[in-house]
Amino acid sequence: MRKSKQIYPFFWENNRFYILDQRLLPNKIKYVECKSYKDIVFCIKNMIIRGAPAIGLAGGYALVLAFSEINIKNINFDYVEKVSEEIIASRPTAYNLKYCVDILKKEVFDNLDRKKKIFQILLKRANKLRRENKEFMQKISIFGAELLRENSVVLTHCNAGVLACGDIGTALGIIIEGFRRGKIKYVYVDETRPYLQGARLTILELMISKVPCCLITDNMAAFVIKEKKVDCVIVGADRIARNGDTANKIGTYNLAVVCKQHKVPFYVAAPSSTIDYNIPTGKHIPIEYRDPEELKYINKNLITHKNAQAIHPAFDVTDAKFIDAIITEKGVFKYPYKFEI
Amino acid sequence: MRKSKQIYPFFWENNRFYILDQRLLPNKIKYVECKSYKDIVFCIKNMIIRGAPAIGLAGGYALVLAFSEINIKNINFDYVEKVSEEIIASRPTAYNLKYCVDILKKEVFDNLDRKKKIFQILLKRANKLRRENKEFMQKISIFGAELLRENSVVLTHCNAGVLACGDIGTALGIIIEGFRRGKIKYVYVDETRPYLQGARLTILELMISKVPCCLITDNMAAFVIKEKKVDCVIVGADRIARNGDTANKIGTYNLAVVCKQHKVPFYVAAPSSTIDYNIPTGKHIPIEYRDPEELKYINKNLITHKNAQAIHPAFDVTDAKFIDAIITEKGVFKYPYKFEI
Repeated sequence: MRKSKQIYPFFWENNRFYILDQRLLPNKIKYVECKSYKDIVFCIKNMIIRGAPAIGLAGGYALVLAFSEINIKNINFDYVEKVSEEIIASRPTAYNLKYCVDILKKEVFDNLDRKKKIFQILLKRANKLRRENKEFMQKISIFGAELLRENSVVLTHCNAGVLACGDIGTALGIIIEGFRRGKIKYVYVDETRPYLQGARLTILELMISKVPCCLITDNMAAFVIKEKKVDCVIVGADRIARNGDTANKIGTYNLAVVCKQHKVPFYVAAPSSTIDYNIPTGKHIPIEYRDPEELKYINKNLITHKNAQAIHPAFDVTDAKFIDAIITEKGVFKYPYKFEI
Repeated sequence: MRKSKQIYPFFWENNRFYILDQRLLPNKIKYVECKSYKDIVFCIKNMIIRGAPAIGLAGGYALVLAFSEINIKNINFDYVEKVSEEIIASRPTAYNLKYCVDILKKEVFDNLDRKKKIFQILLKRANKLRRENKEFMQKISIFGAELLRENSVVLTHCNAGVLACGDIGTALGIIIEGFRRGKIKYVYVDETRPYLQGARLTILELMISKVPCCLITDNMAAFVIKEKKVDCVIVGADRIARNGDTANKIGTYNLAVVCKQHKVPFYVAAPSSTIDYNIPTGKHIPIEYRDPEELKYINKNLITHKNAQAIHPAFDVTDAKFIDAIITEKGVFKYPYKFEI
C-alpha cells in the first residue's frame, strides 16, 4: 500500500496485480489481489477499476498474468487470441484497453521463441507502458493548463484523475496543474449517476490536492454553467474517432450541448492511445449497455418501483463540432480534427 | 385512505388535513395528520408534500386550519398577515402557494364581521379551489394531448402528476390523456436528483396508469433525446414570469437547452395560477437554495466525502425562448408569450 496521501488505482507486487476497489471510495481503501488475468477481467467488468487509461494499463498487466499461470508449453496462437479478446471485451467502449492489449500481444508473438522469458518480457513492457502513460499525462496537464484562463471556474464530469489514469490524470491532471499555477479558482463536480464517480472519486482527488471544489447533481450543470460563470468544461474520453467524435461517460454529450449554447469552451483531454484511427466517426463506437439494476439501487437501496423499467447506456458520443479542443500528449488539436498518426 | 389504485397527495377529514408522505414513496404509503397550519408548513418545508399546485392547495387548507385552532377573538390583521407570510415562505419559488393563500386571505378579510362562521367559509373556499384545480387540470390534459403527435415518445422531468397537483396532473395529466387517446408510445422519466421524484413518483404514477415508461438518470436525457427519437419534452412549472420565463425543478433548464439543439418541442404545462403577473422576467423569481446535505446523502447513506462542499439550488429558470408552448387551462400559449389576465 502506498504511503503518500495520493491513492493509486493499482500496483504490481511479487507477481501479483493489486486493484483498488473504487466502488468503496471515498469511505474505504481496499485493494483486490489479482492472481490471474480473469481476476483483472472481473475487476474491469464490475467497475472495481474504471477509467479508460487505467483499464488500458490493467489490461496490459492482465496479459502479463496470462503468461505466468499456464504451462509455457501451452502458449499458442489460439490461446493468445482468446485471452486478448476476453480482456478487450470486458469494457467494449474504451479504446485504450485494446491499444494496450495489442501492444502486449505483439510482444508475445515477437517472442514466441523465447517462451521461458516471455513473462519477464511482458512485465517489462507493461511497466514501460505505465511509465509512458505517466509522461503523457504530464504533457497533457501542461498543454491543458496553458489553455486555461486566469481565475478559471471549471466544471468536470465523472472522474478523469489518477484513479482513472494510473497517474496524474487527464481532465483532473489539467485542473490540478492549473491550480498549481494559480489559474483555477473553483471546480464544480457533477456527481455522475449512476456510479457517482464525481461524488466519490473526483471530489476526493480534488480535496487531496486542496483544490476548492463543489459537488452538484448532474442536472444542475446547465444552471451552474449559466449562473456561476463557468469558464470551461473539461472531461476525459473513452474512445475518440478519427473525426474527433468522442465517447465518454454518459452525461458528457449533455454538457457539450449546454456549453455550445452558452459559448463556454468544451475540452476533451486524453492520451492519443484513446484515438481509434480505424473508425471515421462516432457512429462506429460501440456503446456499452450495462445492467439497468445498477440505476435502480443506490448502496443496495431500491430508489424506484421494483418493477420499473430502466436503461443504462454507460457512455454517450459527443459530436466533434461540440468539442473546442482535444488535448493529447502530442499537443492540442482544434476542430475540425486531423490527428497525426 | 382512498381505496382506488390512485394515490392522492392529501385529503381533508373530520377537520384535519392529511398529507401523504411522498418521501416514502413508492415503497410505503403513510399519511401525516395535520392539526395546525404549522404542521402543513412543516410538511411543505420538508418535502413531505411537493409540486406547485398541490402545495398551493395545501397552503389554502393551512389557512383554514389557522382559523380553527385559535380563539376566534384573536383574529386580527396582524395574525392573518403573519400566518399567510409563514405559509408562503415555506417554499419561496412556487407561485401557486401565494396565489391560493391570497385568495383565502381575502376571504378572511371579507368576512371579519362573521368570525364565528369564518372556519366554514374558508373550508368551503379551499374545497372550491380544489374542485377548480381539478377542472383546470382536465382542460390542461386535453389541450396538451391535442398537441401530441401520433405515436409519441415523450420525456418528462421530476413529477407533475396527481401527486404534484392534487388531481390529474399537468405534464403527466397530458401524457396519461395522450396515452388514453393512443398517442403515447413510450415515456422516458428523468430520475430527478437529489429527491428522485421521477424515479419514485412519476414512474409509480405511470405504472398505475399502465403507460409504458422507462427510468433514466438525469445525465442520460441528451443521449435519449438524440438517440431514441424523443418527440417532445413536457414538464410542469413552479412559477412563470409575465414573459414566459419559467422556474421549475432543477434540471429543467438543461432539458430545454438540449431540446433547442435537437429541434425537439419543449412544453411547459401549468395552471394559470402559476403565472406571476407581478414580475416581468425570470430574473425576479427567487430560487430556493436547500441544505446541501440533501445531495450528499441518499437514504441516509453518504455518497461523497463527508467534508465535501455542495450546493443545492432546488429550481432553475428556463428562458421563454426555449419553451415552444405553455399549456394552461385557458389554452395553449406560444412564444413570444402574452398571457391574458
